[in-house]
Amino acid sequence: MKKQLNDILMDQNIFIIEEFIRHQPYDIAQKIKSYSLQDQISLIDIIPITKSSKILRHMSPVEQYRILTHLSVDKTKILLNSQPMDDLVDLFLAIHPKQDEKLMTYLDKDTQQKIKDLMIFKPGTAGSLVTIDYISARENWSVKMTLEHIRKIAGNVESVSYIYVLDNYGHLNGIVSIRELLSALDREFLSNIMIRDIISVYAEVDQQEAVKKLTNHYLSALPVTTTDNKMIGMITFDDAMNVMEDEATEDIQKLGGSEPLNKPYFETSIWNIYSKRIPWLLFLFVAEAYTGTVLHYFEDTLEKVVALAFFVPLLVGTGGNTGTQIVATIIRAIGIGEVKFKDIFRVIRKEVSVGVLLGLSLGIAGLIRAYILGVGLEVAQVVAITLVCIVLWASIVASVLPLILRKLKLDPAVVSGPFITTFVDGTGLVIYFLVAKMLLNL
Amino acid sequence: MKKQLNDILMDQNIFIIEEFIRHQPYDIAQKIKSYSLQDQISLIDIIPITKSSKILRHMSPVEQYRILTHLSVDKTKILLNSQPMDDLVDLFLAIHPKQDEKLMTYLDKDTQQKIKDLMIFKPGTAGSLVTIDYISARENWSVKMTLEHIRKIAGNVESVSYIYVLDNYGHLNGIVSIRELLSALDREFLSNIMIRDIISVYAEVDQQEAVKKLTNHYLSALPVTTTDNKMIGMITFDDAMNVMEDEATEDIQKLGGSEPLNKPYFETSIWNIYSKRIPWLLFLFVAEAYTGTVLHYFEDTLEKVVALAFFVPLLVGTGGNTGTQIVATIIRAIGIGEVKFKDIFRVIRKEVSVGVLLGLSLGIAGLIRAYILGVGLEVAQVVAITLVCIVLWASIVASVLPLILRKLKLDPAVVSGPFITTFVDGTGLVIYFLVAKMLLNL
Repeated sequence: MKKQLNDILMDQNIFIIEEFIRHQPYDIAQKIKSYSLQDQISLIDIIPITKSSKILRHMSPVEQYRILTHLSVDKTKILLNSQPMDDLVDLFLAIHPKQDEKLMTYLDKDTQQKIKDLMIFKPGTAGSLVTIDYISARENWSVKMTLEHIRKIAGNVESVSYIYVLDNYGHLNGIVSIRELLSALDREFLSNIMIRDIISVYAEVDQQEAVKKLTNHYLSALPVTTTDNKMIGMITFDDAMNVMEDEATEDIQKLGGSEPLNKPYFETSIWNIYSKRIPWLLFLFVAEAYTGTVLHYFEDTLEKVVALAFFVPLLVGTGGNTGTQIVATIIRAIGIGEVKFKDIFRVIRKEVSVGVLLGLSLGIAGLIRAYILGVGLEVAQVVAITLVCIVLWASIVASVLPLILRKLKLDPAVVSGPFITTFVDGTGLVIYFLVAKMLLNL
Repeated sequence: MKKQLNDILMDQNIFIIEEFIRHQPYDIAQKIKSYSLQDQISLIDIIPITKSSKILRHMSPVEQYRILTHLSVDKTKILLNSQPMDDLVDLFLAIHPKQDEKLMTYLDKDTQQKIKDLMIFKPGTAGSLVTIDYISARENWSVKMTLEHIRKIAGNVESVSYIYVLDNYGHLNGIVSIRELLSALDREFLSNIMIRDIISVYAEVDQQEAVKKLTNHYLSALPVTTTDNKMIGMITFDDAMNVMEDEATEDIQKLGGSEPLNKPYFETSIWNIYSKRIPWLLFLFVAEAYTGTVLHYFEDTLEKVVALAFFVPLLVGTGGNTGTQIVATIIRAIGIGEVKFKDIFRVIRKEVSVGVLLGLSLGIAGLIRAYILGVGLEVAQVVAITLVCIVLWASIVASVLPLILRKLKLDPAVVSGPFITTFVDGTGLVIYFLVAKMLLNL
C-alpha cells in the first residue's frame, strides 16, 4: 500500500512532487501520515518551508517530533521557529522531558521562557489552549498608529481579528475588533473605540467553559487572563472547535458505557481499549447479576407458569431501550446547557407524559405478541400491564438520575445506555413478577 | 418567577435598565427569553438599536418574529435591516409563508431578492448556511485601494477575515486573508498576493462536509460557489460551530435509539418526542420478540435445568453492554472520519483482540457468580463459556454492522445501542442454549 516515495525521488520526477505539494497543507498532512517515517522526512525536507511548516501543524505532536529530530539542525530550527506558540507547547508537553532539551535549545531564550510559562497550565484548562501570538496595543494609540503597527507584525501573529488593549502592567483594559478598527477614522484613539465590557476567561477554568463562552458570543478568539486581569493569551476558534469535537467524542464513548479513549481509535492500543472498557463491564456484570437473585427468588412463580420466562428478555429489553433513548437526550441537553437541575420537575413531567403514550403503545404490542405466542389471556394481561409499568419506571429513572448526578457535581454521562439498561433489567423483573403474582393469584 | 419588568419601567427606574443592558448581548438574550412576550417587546423597544440588533441574533427565528411583529413599523424596519443576511434567511424560512409578506416589504427590493435567492437552498446543505455579507475585490486592485474599500464597507460585512477576488462574471479566482493584505505593501496588486488554490464547497453539498472542510483547514470562513465556480457567499466559523453541535446532538440521540429531535428539548412537544421514539421502540420490540420464540424453542432444555433461566438476563445483558461500547466508539470514529470502510479488517482484528481479553475476564466473573448461586459446576461452565462466545460475537457484529451500513450509504448510527442490544439478546440466547445442550448432553 505504501507509496514508494523514495523511488519517485530517485527518478528525479520532480513534476510529481510539484503536483503533490500544490495540494492544501491539511490534505498533504493526511497523505504523508500513511507513508513510512523515512518518506515523511524526505518529503518535509524538500517541501519549501512556508508550506512544510503549515503541514506540520496538521500532524500530532508525536508525529511532528519524529520528523523534526531527523531533519538537519538548520531545517529543524527554522521549522520549529515557524510554529505557533500553542503548537510548540503541545509539542514539548507530548515528548518526554529528557528528549526536549535539544529541541528547546533551537529556540531563542525568550521563546523558551514563554513556552515554559505556558506549559504549567494543566491539560483540560483554558490556559492549556492559549496562544500568545496576539496583537496588543495601548489605549492612547491612534487608529492610524495601530494599523501601522499591525501591518508590521501581522505575519507573526496567529490572528488579527482582535487588538487587545493593555496597560503598562499587562492588564487587559479593552478590545478592538479589526473590523471596528478598519471602520474607524485614522485620528480616533483606541480608548474611544475599544470595548470595555470584555468577555474573557481565567486560565484555570475548564476548557469546556471557555469554549462555550467563545461559541455563545460568536467570537473568533477569546482572551485568557490571570485572576487579576493580566493578559496571558488568547484561545482561537480553531482550537475551540477541536475541543468541541473531542468533548463530543468523550460524551458518546461514555454514553456507550466505556471510559473515553482520549486518543484516535487506531492510535489506542488493544490493552488500552481493554482497560477503558473492562471496569464498566465488570461493574455492570455485578449489577446485572442481581437479576439472577431476583429470578431465584421468584423461582416458584416461574416454575408454576413457565410461559412467564418467555417474556423476560422482551420486557426488560424494552425498558432498557426506553431508558437509553431518554438518557441520550437528557445527557446531551445537560451537556449543551439546555437543561439544568432546576428543570428537574419539568423534565419528569415531560418524560412521564411521553412515557404514558409509549407505555400504552407498547402494552398493546405486548398483548398482540402474547396472543401470537398463545400463552393465554391472563399471561397476556400481565405482559401488557408490566410493559406500561416498566416504561414509566424507566422514564422516571432515566430522566432523574443524570440530573441528580449533575447536581452532585458528578459526570451525568456515568448514566450510560448500558447502565440504565442494567438498572432497569433487575428492577423491571421485580415489577414483572409482582404484577404476575397479583394478577395470577400465585 | 417572572420579573415584573413593566413595573420597573413604570417606576422610571432607569438605572436598573442601564445596568441590565450593560451585559453582553448573548447573556441579555438568555435572560429575556424567560420573560413574558410583553416584557420582551418592551425591553427590545427601549434598548438602543446597536445592542438590540445583536441581542436578536441570539434568539431563535420564531422568537425574533414574535418580537418584531409587535414593535412599531419604524423600529422593526431598522432592526430587520441590521440583521445579517443568513439570519434573515433563517427568519423568513422559519415563519409561515403568509406571514412573511409584511415583514418582507420592510426590506429594500435588492435585499428581498437576495433573501429569496438564498431561501432556495435546502436545509442541511452548505447553501443553507451562506451569508452574502462578504468582501469582494478585483485582482487589479492595489493593496492600498482594497484597504480603503474595506474601511468604507467594514461595518456592513459579517467578517473581514478574507477578501474574495472575483472576476466580472462573479467567478471566485482568488482569496486574500486580511492578515496577508495588511502584511503586504500598499502598491502590491491583489493578483500578486492572492491565493489561487482555493478551498471552497458547492452550495448543494451536505453541510457536514462543508463544516469538515472549514475545521480541517482552520478557516474562519469558507466560500460557497456554484458548480461553475460563481461565488454565492461564505459560511462563517460561528455557523459551522452551531452545525457541529447540532450534528453531535443528532448522533447522540440516534445512538440512544431514537430519531433526532432536531429542536431544543423543551421546545419539542410531547407528541413530537413520542413520534420520534415510538417507531424504533416498536421495531426493537418486534425484533426482541423473537427472544420469546428462542426460549419457546428451547423450552424442554429450560424445564430440565431451570437454573439456566437465572443467567438469561445476565448473559444477554453483558453481550449488549459490550456491543454498545463498541458501537459508540466505531460510529463516532466513522463520524469524524477516523475509520473508513476500507479499515474493516483492521477494526475486526482490533475488536476481536480486545474481545478475547474482555471475554476471558467476564468468563471468570461468570464462573464466580455461578459458584455463588450454587448451581453446580456444569452449569457454571456453560455460563463461563457462553460469556466468552457472546462477547466475541457482540464484538464482531458491533464492529462490522456500522461499517457495512456506511458502505451502503446508510446512516451507520442506525446501529444504536438499543439496536445492538436487541440483536445480541436473541442471537446470544441461541448461543447459550447450544452451549448448554452440548455440555450438559441435553
